[in-house]
Amino acid sequence: LKRRLPDLRLVDIDNAGDAIDIALIWKVPPGLERFGNLRAILSLGAGVDQLDLDTLPKNVPLARLKDDSLTACMIDYCRLAVLRYHRDFHLYERLSREGGPWRYELPKRTSERCVGILGLGELGGAVAGDLVSAGFQVAGWSRSRKEVAGVRSCIGPEGLEEIAAMSEILINLLPLTPQTENILNRQFFSKMRVGSYLINVGRGRHLAEDDLLWALDEGRLAGATLDVFRTEPLPAGHPFWGDRRILVTPHIAAAGNPETAADYVAENIRRALRGERLLNQVDVSRGY
Amino acid sequence: LKRRLPDLRLVDIDNAGDAIDIALIWKVPPGLERFGNLRAILSLGAGVDQLDLDTLPKNVPLARLKDDSLTACMIDYCRLAVLRYHRDFHLYERLSREGGPWRYELPKRTSERCVGILGLGELGGAVAGDLVSAGFQVAGWSRSRKEVAGVRSCIGPEGLEEIAAMSEILINLLPLTPQTENILNRQFFSKMRVGSYLINVGRGRHLAEDDLLWALDEGRLAGATLDVFRTEPLPAGHPFWGDRRILVTPHIAAAGNPETAADYVAENIRRALRGERLLNQVDVSRGY
Repeated sequence: LKRRLPDLRLVDIDNAGDAIDIALIWKVPPGLERFGNLRAILSLGAGVDQLDLDTLPKNVPLARLKDDSLTACMIDYCRLAVLRYHRDFHLYERLSREGGPWRYELPKRTSERCVGILGLGELGGAVAGDLVSAGFQVAGWSRSRKEVAGVRSCIGPEGLEEIAAMSEILINLLPLTPQTENILNRQFFSKMRVGSYLINVGRGRHLAEDDLLWALDEGRLAGATLDVFRTEPLPAGHPFWGDRRILVTPHIAAAGNPETAADYVAENIRRALRGERLLNQVDVSRGY
Repeated sequence: LKRRLPDLRLVDIDNAGDAIDIALIWKVPPGLERFGNLRAILSLGAGVDQLDLDTLPKNVPLARLKDDSLTACMIDYCRLAVLRYHRDFHLYERLSREGGPWRYELPKRTSERCVGILGLGELGGAVAGDLVSAGFQVAGWSRSRKEVAGVRSCIGPEGLEEIAAMSEILINLLPLTPQTENILNRQFFSKMRVGSYLINVGRGRHLAEDDLLWALDEGRLAGATLDVFRTEPLPAGHPFWGDRRILVTPHIAAAGNPETAADYVAENIRRALRGERLLNQVDVSRGY
């Protein structure tokens, strides 16, 4: 940031007196309300679900982080997790380990496979575009209708049932809000196709964990790849560990990069100082 | 083919008398030399290593199959197998199964990873281009220098050592010829980086199997994904089965599609009847 904005004075909030213009935060620090001249709050997370929005100063614009490296990293993870099911690698991993048998089956083409994405924001939209370029049929569910080339847009409660019924592989990339908490629940799973797969790269609290185990036991879902959990690190002894239908990854789907993130933060600092609308500004009433 | 070339007369070679213009073959059928007016031999394989080239009629042009679906299928397999190592899914699969522990490590960016490809022909060139588009550093080794955008071209025996030393993940997509049989051997592996990965989607006879096990035991290679084998199906009890460093897939990396293949065969039939050079015509002296 100093390289990008040489005139910037960076201070730790505890030594800031009562005069700062812009706050870069992860969680809400105590006493943030004392900075009467605050012009912007920049979250250092891609989401703002780690913030208690009610405790933030009113009328100060808030923005989420955007980071092109983080987006690229998420695209790669989703392409990998989708292709792994699409090409039956989860099955071949098991057969390899168990000593066979050789089980030849003609691979399906990507154009014969439907992938659904919950959330078509910064990350969901980018992942959807990547899967379209790989030739998959892609559907996306979002609060308001979104135009992503080649993606079937679903909205509202009917749209949620529709995408559940269509998708052979379903990716969750929704923001976490009171409306989306536990959206991946028994009711939702019971609308999904028999033998389909779930990839959760949103937040752990999107998923009702017991309901996932129910859906796997019923055969509704054939497997799940989970990168986020209600408690992280996922505790030893948790039923997800050792369940051969579940692949656990340690919250590595998307990692930021200081260089690309700093470009974006610097631009939002410039915008705040000029009194302009921020990039990725949060609508606090929606919660994202 | 009948839909594409309505005037075509298709006959089984055993009932063909002695007058056929074009032979579509997989292996060399007995008595092929009796067709004195043969104008082209079209292999139904992407390679011609299943043919004993010495037994083919001389001076009749021979072509390999090209099939866009097959190429797309191979691209997806290689992207998947590369990303799986790049993003440590082979490790997370094991940790998931064994009940943890959670092992967080910041993922590497694709631009920090070098992938090497042996063979830059129809398939190798397409895979190289795809991995460049995914942001990887890509090097390719071929008999003659090839220009693939973003790919470092290596040739000759020095080039082979160079690509072995550079690649963290190495894909074999060479044609099988007397010169490339057993090219993946102890001497080659001893030039590879410690902890690197092999993906063999060429032919089983490219790989000296005992030498691979040696390289894994030495820690020279950290793992291998193998889709082709000297004997297929891979026999029960083969040491590759049950070796947790090896992922066995049942020769499914690339599958042809009758529709796209027929377009290509029809075009080569038209060319043969007009006396033109065939697409993918084989140089019999090179063997591919």
